[in-house]
Amino acid sequence: MIKFKYHLLLIFFISTCLPAQQLSKQDVVFIDSLYKTALSLEQGYQWMQQICAIGPRLSGSENSAQSLRWAEQQLRQITGPQVYLQPATVPTWNRGNTEQAFLLNGPAKRALRIAALGGSIATPSHGITAGVVEVSSFKELEAKSALVNGKIVFFNPHFTKTNLNTFSSYGELAGIRVFGAREAAKYGAVATLLRSITSRNDNVPHVGVMIYADSIKKIPSAALGIQDADYLHETLLTDSAATVQMELDCAPGEDRLSANVIAEWKGSEKPDEIILMSGHFDSWDKGQGAQDDAAGIVHTMESLSLLARAGFHPRHTIRFVLFMNEENGSRGASAYADSSARRNEKHLAAIESDRGGFVPQGFGFEGDSIAFTVMNRVFPELQRWNLWYFKQGGGGADISRIKNCRIKLGFIPDSQRYFDFHHSDNDVLDAVNPRELELGSAANATIIYLLDKLF
Amino acid sequence: MIKFKYHLLLIFFISTCLPAQQLSKQDVVFIDSLYKTALSLEQGYQWMQQICAIGPRLSGSENSAQSLRWAEQQLRQITGPQVYLQPATVPTWNRGNTEQAFLLNGPAKRALRIAALGGSIATPSHGITAGVVEVSSFKELEAKSALVNGKIVFFNPHFTKTNLNTFSSYGELAGIRVFGAREAAKYGAVATLLRSITSRNDNVPHVGVMIYADSIKKIPSAALGIQDADYLHETLLTDSAATVQMELDCAPGEDRLSANVIAEWKGSEKPDEIILMSGHFDSWDKGQGAQDDAAGIVHTMESLSLLARAGFHPRHTIRFVLFMNEENGSRGASAYADSSARRNEKHLAAIESDRGGFVPQGFGFEGDSIAFTVMNRVFPELQRWNLWYFKQGGGGADISRIKNCRIKLGFIPDSQRYFDFHHSDNDVLDAVNPRELELGSAANATIIYLLDKLF
Repeated sequence: MIKFKYHLLLIFFISTCLPAQQLSKQDVVFIDSLYKTALSLEQGYQWMQQICAIGPRLSGSENSAQSLRWAEQQLRQITGPQVYLQPATVPTWNRGNTEQAFLLNGPAKRALRIAALGGSIATPSHGITAGVVEVSSFKELEAKSALVNGKIVFFNPHFTKTNLNTFSSYGELAGIRVFGAREAAKYGAVATLLRSITSRNDNVPHVGVMIYADSIKKIPSAALGIQDADYLHETLLTDSAATVQMELDCAPGEDRLSANVIAEWKGSEKPDEIILMSGHFDSWDKGQGAQDDAAGIVHTMESLSLLARAGFHPRHTIRFVLFMNEENGSRGASAYADSSARRNEKHLAAIESDRGGFVPQGFGFEGDSIAFTVMNRVFPELQRWNLWYFKQGGGGADISRIKNCRIKLGFIPDSQRYFDFHHSDNDVLDAVNPRELELGSAANATIIYLLDKLF
Repeated sequence: MIKFKYHLLLIFFISTCLPAQQLSKQDVVFIDSLYKTALSLEQGYQWMQQICAIGPRLSGSENSAQSLRWAEQQLRQITGPQVYLQPATVPTWNRGNTEQAFLLNGPAKRALRIAALGGSIATPSHGITAGVVEVSSFKELEAKSALVNGKIVFFNPHFTKTNLNTFSSYGELAGIRVFGAREAAKYGAVATLLRSITSRNDNVPHVGVMIYADSIKKIPSAALGIQDADYLHETLLTDSAATVQMELDCAPGEDRLSANVIAEWKGSEKPDEIILMSGHFDSWDKGQGAQDDAAGIVHTMESLSLLARAGFHPRHTIRFVLFMNEENGSRGASAYADSSARRNEKHLAAIESDRGGFVPQGFGFEGDSIAFTVMNRVFPELQRWNLWYFKQGGGGADISRIKNCRIKLGFIPDSQRYFDFHHSDNDVLDAVNPRELELGSAANATIIYLLDKLF
């Protein structure tokens, strides 16, 4: 009996502790070839240059339509998959021509660098001039609610520098950007200004989506460069009567027909089980949307290209999806999820790359514990390609809507520089390092290959 | 008997497999505080700004002397260690005022962007005009040796893009830069041009040390921007008689007295066992020497500052050494090693940061197997701070000379962007991301703390 127990324990330790060889020599050669092709050809970086040359790709814009045509054309040159468009009706919004603000402090007048948050309404054509109430949280807004009527609420929370993962710092503040206007309007505010959510010490406004509530008055809402935010803060300390004059002529527009672009590669053994790889094609209308999320588009297109070049024949059906409208509505993701649910499709896995094209760390996991165990056992062998990270928690905004999906994976690159660029004029080609981008394509191709092999 | 064997096996598995807790809660709190202080204060990045403002710091230059005074002053403001200079006589070299080259292809004349390699002699004042023999290796040089007499040898090896670790690619080519002139001169070459050793697709020359042999004729040697290297290559394909006219007025100078700057923190329990942390202060005379190696200087100074701020009291003596003359002579390292050997000093460990201020991956190890085992067991717990890498192989040029030293550690940050900047006008403040730099300081402070605790 004792002996039996020891046997069990031994099996347990061996199975959980000993470095079981999960990858064959052939696997290693194959994965090596993905990395070598990516780093030597740099096709993904060439695509990045072409996407950035089109410019920013706000949903419904002419640039976004042009980029879809471009992607379709590129994907059709890859032998293997079927390429098609999946229609999605997307909202539109126009920044307009005027976005300016001035700080009026006694006789002094100083320009503040602002940019309308996505979805904001315009100010009246003569602008808004009002006193300013500064807060750093919704809690502080509530505490100061009696002061807010007729005022501009200045949300001035600082990006937490001490988080190792900058997405945690972003997560702390994104809600203030999205819901700040409606919360401030509850108390009679006439507009909001938001300290830009960024890790970079410059004065470039960082935008992003904001959402009104039907039942609450809509007020204009803009991001402010952080150096001007500091200046406004300092001014208010000594002159609480300082006023801000701001003018925006942005406006929501009509919905337009757009699409997801899909390249579908039929599986030889399990054609009804889908592995999905994705990024999103729309961007904000600042910069060139290079890191957010041309990088994810490149990872998606290039992982297909790398696997095709390597002579890969998938067992499962693999879908490479370029989603439209992640930034302000997720209509592309909804169109995909709805269509997939209608057809009772089964997804083995969905992967999303929407954290930029920085040096890969690994993948975040969502799914059942057996799938986690299977993947977790192979992951240590991926350190050979500098993939270190495999942990619970991940996924992504677009794939979150897919219902019948066993595994959801979020590609995790290093996060240190992402919010230097995010949603701003900083997010241009120059923000992308070719090698870092290419490593991401190879990492995503590797995980697709492994999913196809392991399950 | 069987039972006994199972016991042994179990102990083996438990000791090697189970995640033994090496770090106490107190350790975690302490290390967390190092990271939080680094990321919130960004003192290291402020120092980086100040060092870059001084400018490049070639050994023996006025800038290098100024930077030593600056460092001494900064270190004296930190309570705890004793600060002193360790004299070292260093070589000097002056780039001069003229470095230019032209490709003469029939009637056409095109400027080539060049920069003298460090240590090169000048051309005659009227320059050198000669035909060109292109080779990509010493082996090819030997094969073409009959063609070389009276010619300029153009070394045109490409940086291998497919290595995951860019230092491997650099290692493949550095020898051609260092010894190219002497090898070419053996066959009667009159000068050399070297395709810049870089991962970046621009035309900026990347320099670095070259060394003559006393017994072989000295010939001038310069780096060429890679776009011009490609142009020269293309031209030679169709016109092997194309010539290059080049002019350099660089010159070696007299040796000068310089110094290492050392901050020494006495140990309370093992004052005779030294833990050394280091970077090097000298740089090439292009750009600002930001990544190479102001980053290592910042890591060294800030790891001290972080530990001091955290109220750390070392058990071992900790020496923070800013080495002079790593780039072209290692005279600072020799002065340290010689002085240390004379005094029969015992080093528990020496750490070197000379791979830039990019996001940390971990440390490379050189030393005995017991020390490796001890460190390797604690390393998995450092994944909490995104330190993933701990492997045999590492060290660094400056610490390699220290004789009585049990453990040598090379700080390993991500390598993808390093050779975009290395030894060129690209290596300026803008090449440094504050968060990435600060994470390196915290990582080095952490490893000092652990070495002091574990041994």
